[in-house]
Amino acid sequence: MSRISFLGIGLMGAPMVARLLDAGFSLTLWNRTRSKAEPFAGRARIADSPAAAVAEAQVVITMLENGAVVDQVLHHSGALAQLQPGALVIDMSSIEPGMARRHGARVEEAGGVYLDAPVSGGTRGAQAGTLSIMAGGEEADFERATALFQALGKATHIGPVGSGQLAKLANQAIVGITIGAVSEALLLAARGGARPDRVRQALLGGFAGSKILEQHGERMLQRDFQPGAPSRIQLKDLRMILDEARAEGLSLPLSQRVFEQYRALLASGHGEVDHSGLLLELERLNGVRLDGELP
Amino acid sequence: MSRISFLGIGLMGAPMVARLLDAGFSLTLWNRTRSKAEPFAGRARIADSPAAAVAEAQVVITMLENGAVVDQVLHHSGALAQLQPGALVIDMSSIEPGMARRHGARVEEAGGVYLDAPVSGGTRGAQAGTLSIMAGGEEADFERATALFQALGKATHIGPVGSGQLAKLANQAIVGITIGAVSEALLLAARGGARPDRVRQALLGGFAGSKILEQHGERMLQRDFQPGAPSRIQLKDLRMILDEARAEGLSLPLSQRVFEQYRALLASGHGEVDHSGLLLELERLNGVRLDGELP
Repeated sequence: MSRISFLGIGLMGAPMVARLLDAGFSLTLWNRTRSKAEPFAGRARIADSPAAAVAEAQVVITMLENGAVVDQVLHHSGALAQLQPGALVIDMSSIEPGMARRHGARVEEAGGVYLDAPVSGGTRGAQAGTLSIMAGGEEADFERATALFQALGKATHIGPVGSGQLAKLANQAIVGITIGAVSEALLLAARGGARPDRVRQALLGGFAGSKILEQHGERMLQRDFQPGAPSRIQLKDLRMILDEARAEGLSLPLSQRVFEQYRALLASGHGEVDHSGLLLELERLNGVRLDGELP
Repeated sequence: MSRISFLGIGLMGAPMVARLLDAGFSLTLWNRTRSKAEPFAGRARIADSPAAAVAEAQVVITMLENGAVVDQVLHHSGALAQLQPGALVIDMSSIEPGMARRHGARVEEAGGVYLDAPVSGGTRGAQAGTLSIMAGGEEADFERATALFQALGKATHIGPVGSGQLAKLANQAIVGITIGAVSEALLLAARGGARPDRVRQALLGGFAGSKILEQHGERMLQRDFQPGAPSRIQLKDLRMILDEARAEGLSLPLSQRVFEQYRALLASGHGEVDHSGLLLELERLNGVRLDGELP
């Protein structure tokens, strides 16, 4: 079986590495802070540099913070110059679609092939191997990654390079706006005298039913805003969505509106609450609380 | 078993009556246009007036177009004066919460008890007996209606009188806004070069997953805007949501924004398309189409 180098052993990377090892893949790991890779020392090689990791692999996976870090680790470090002919580079980080296309072009220049394959499902999905993987690139390259993706979750081939990132942006737009919709619906019903927990329950089986109503709705009712996915990340994603829309000449009224709401949420100091905490901004705007307590 | 009078044999009322008859209930029917009740002539009594229908029933169900029509049929017609002592009036129409409270007070004055119990699930849900029923009123009155609701779908007791209507408004707010979210997400991804059908498929299993993405997303991809639920009804519901919000002193930014979008959709002549046709307004705004065809 071909050797995989995995670059970026963070909150998402670590459980993904664990699943790949459990599935029997041979891994070389690299992380800027080497100590985060050490727990795997008995089961995987640990490389001293991105270039050393890239040099010995037929498949290179990156799971990094943003597009600039991917650029730094793969390109500016000189790692791509070490790429084996025909090696497959899979960037599973969430970055701008345009940047993914530039990375793809660089990998091709270096003699490799490239997939962008961001994920949704969070750390829980990474641990359980139930990530939703959205992949952009050539069909043949996608098929080459099948066994590997199967160890991590469910993969869908969305289109050419950049399409995985576009699907991730679509995901984040729907998630952010639906959180806003659930906030407004529950607050409206509660202020009118209905029990918001019963509203959630009644709506779950109908057309208003969604994962967000189920999980984030419950967090709103419990006022449990431990992340999950912090609001500052949701804001960053919405900014990427609006940047991409602008680049395509598109106006997206609801994405724009919910972006402004998350910006206001952060401005009032709530960057670290879960993204379901958008309710707090709606409560602040209206001077009332969902649970009827004084604000 | 107590006799039920059912007033309003329309698109929703007719399949609901059929299910109640199948479940063995004894029904008296009334409809303004008598011919719509005639198909049930062998299985149910047909009354000549609302008053005649109300006079002989222990349970009165109304399924009418709006609150003013309910007022006309129950109150101005003189029907409530015929109400049996302790009779249960269940209004399953979708009307303003404040109007439901006024109907409730009138029924009480007339010696009866009242539930507001609007539904979601459409004509298909009515036929299949899978309606989601959202009920407001006293717990004891809700329990009295259990067997009857079971023949029609799944009922949830939301709170005091008016709460059923509040839950229905919450439902419609989430539905309208989520349709807008899915429109924006698919258009963004498609314009960037991704396959929107694959985006929908990839997102269904994750946090962006919803009934709307599943069913209305598919209609957008097929450009099949046969209603379903016409956009003019979604606009009417959003107007009710904003009126109710105003009455409660609430500002609901996303409900407001999507209301404006549906208003623009109707202004361009699309009142009769399914509410998933909000995509058409987003396409008009941007001068592009989801399927890449020229607008």
